[in-house]
Amino acid sequence: MPAITVSVKSPSAYDITIEKGSLNHCGNIIKEVVKGKKCVVVTDSNVEPLYLETVTSSLTEAGFSVESFVFPAGEESKTFLTVQNIVSAFCAADLTRTDFAVALGGGVCGDLVGFAAAIYMRGIDYIGIPTSLLSQIDSSVGGKTACDLPEGKNLVGAFHAPKAVIIDSEALATLPQKYFTDGLGEAVKYGVIKSADLFEKLMNEDAHDFIDALIVTCITIKRDITETDFFEHGDRIFLNFGHTIGHAIEKYYNYKDITHGEAVGIGMVTIAAAAERNGDCEKGVAEKITNCLHNCNLPATTGIDIETLAENALNDKKRRGSDIKIVIPERIGKCTVKKIPALDLVKYLGGED
Amino acid sequence: MPAITVSVKSPSAYDITIEKGSLNHCGNIIKEVVKGKKCVVVTDSNVEPLYLETVTSSLTEAGFSVESFVFPAGEESKTFLTVQNIVSAFCAADLTRTDFAVALGGGVCGDLVGFAAAIYMRGIDYIGIPTSLLSQIDSSVGGKTACDLPEGKNLVGAFHAPKAVIIDSEALATLPQKYFTDGLGEAVKYGVIKSADLFEKLMNEDAHDFIDALIVTCITIKRDITETDFFEHGDRIFLNFGHTIGHAIEKYYNYKDITHGEAVGIGMVTIAAAAERNGDCEKGVAEKITNCLHNCNLPATTGIDIETLAENALNDKKRRGSDIKIVIPERIGKCTVKKIPALDLVKYLGGED
Repeated sequence: MPAITVSVKSPSAYDITIEKGSLNHCGNIIKEVVKGKKCVVVTDSNVEPLYLETVTSSLTEAGFSVESFVFPAGEESKTFLTVQNIVSAFCAADLTRTDFAVALGGGVCGDLVGFAAAIYMRGIDYIGIPTSLLSQIDSSVGGKTACDLPEGKNLVGAFHAPKAVIIDSEALATLPQKYFTDGLGEAVKYGVIKSADLFEKLMNEDAHDFIDALIVTCITIKRDITETDFFEHGDRIFLNFGHTIGHAIEKYYNYKDITHGEAVGIGMVTIAAAAERNGDCEKGVAEKITNCLHNCNLPATTGIDIETLAENALNDKKRRGSDIKIVIPERIGKCTVKKIPALDLVKYLGGED
Repeated sequence: MPAITVSVKSPSAYDITIEKGSLNHCGNIIKEVVKGKKCVVVTDSNVEPLYLETVTSSLTEAGFSVESFVFPAGEESKTFLTVQNIVSAFCAADLTRTDFAVALGGGVCGDLVGFAAAIYMRGIDYIGIPTSLLSQIDSSVGGKTACDLPEGKNLVGAFHAPKAVIIDSEALATLPQKYFTDGLGEAVKYGVIKSADLFEKLMNEDAHDFIDALIVTCITIKRDITETDFFEHGDRIFLNFGHTIGHAIEKYYNYKDITHGEAVGIGMVTIAAAAERNGDCEKGVAEKITNCLHNCNLPATTGIDIETLAENALNDKKRRGSDIKIVIPERIGKCTVKKIPALDLVKYLGGED
């Protein structure tokens, strides 16, 4: 399959290249879009032994001076301290304002490096090379960068778009099964909110068999939504479908023992079932999502009671004032936003007041 | 004297109010421009006993829910850790995306709070209430926010404009003389680069006697320059006149025993003298700047040798690749940019190769 390019326009233009084997010649792709001669490739301790050498070799061959920085793999690294360590690595490599960083790894790596690049000298370029399915379909568009605080997830960050994103689905071969299905949770979300076709395929086929097409479809949907709403005042909220409850579940499990995709999947079923009960959604949608998740080896239920979920959801940073906006499906492929008083959430979900 | 308003358009519009006594009714000014109901006023331990109560009272009277956070006064506080502490204070106050922060204090406070506001939830509003002369004339326009790293000054930051700036020159009454003259160093700079009139007044009169006019003139010059060049690719470099050498001097003294304004003043004389010698500047400019600095109680020379200055200057983050851009005056009121190989700086300055 030849390289596919998805062009993103907002707020600054860049291309996403989806091509099997592209890691091996990423240096040449990057050479087309950056001005600087120097870069720091940042990756985590899991990805380092797998792909760091490939990427640095390609960059060196393309004529760049390359340094690297490795941080311990895992969500626990998504801290202010790691951002500071990455920025210190930029200083040690003597990066100037025209040089750039490369984020080689999953979503945590992309978020941290994008944020570090956003603030180092008030903004330098960075290139995204996402290696997990979740980061390939979800984090490569939208320009959101972040790190966690002790007080909560993604509480600090910046909107900072990469100069290019390079996606090699062959890198998924080394991804543990658990993280592959993690990514499928978000893919199912894109199906529910915007593409009945994608949803049908995910419900009936093996995602490995159409992985590049899946990546392109998800990216294109996210691109279309974020381009019209970069700063998240309108339609971009659709991307949060399943996330209010999903975040509450992740929080309940202290971000351990459950993946983001699993939590979002359960969140989608919970909201769809509630929307059906409240007459906001076509009958049978929750069951379809459940079947689709099962075909992707994802769970559809959790043992947490509705009251606890609602309580955790209301502590989520996305609430505004005393109302809460929830994204609900009307049918597969179409969703809408409903604004309810935060205190009515538990009732809407079918719990006790 | 009635309130004077300087309107800034770029990148987001806001007004700077220059009015004696405005601290006492800042809440009403702020009420006109923010959407949120809650704020955190951040100040330092020097300003806290002087003005925190005045500002929080005015905000409370205007109907806001107000929390405050105080950090230890001084440049040593301009760290990533303080930014993290400020952001934690935002979390503790439960600020949402529509709420705002207030920076009450000098340049360090404005830089830190602006940066914290830029990254908290990827950007919330903030209001600047600068209380030092330097921050009133220099930091209230331009949208630059930053903190220092162990590796150097202002190495991380963001471009984030305030929603309003409120300047009360009566607050300068409590400013130690040393910091008043510190601010005059930057005022002289504005005279040299853009206003022969301002320069004449600073050379012959007492700045206290025309302080509001001085503030308005400096702000207007900076506004005009930054509006056409927000992201610092062109004319904004004029604002760095005297700063390449000034930073080198500050660095030499480890940012102690010399103020920013003193260092910039010496930097201006050094560059002007070099430009005269190299035929890039009208004769007598260095002497005029020296006289003007003396009228403002600022030094015009330092004992540091040219080689050391050049060495320190080349470690400054503003260098790009192997060339260095220096701002030189052609005459009082007009400057230009000269690009020279970094290694030729010492020669240009008149030192030994």
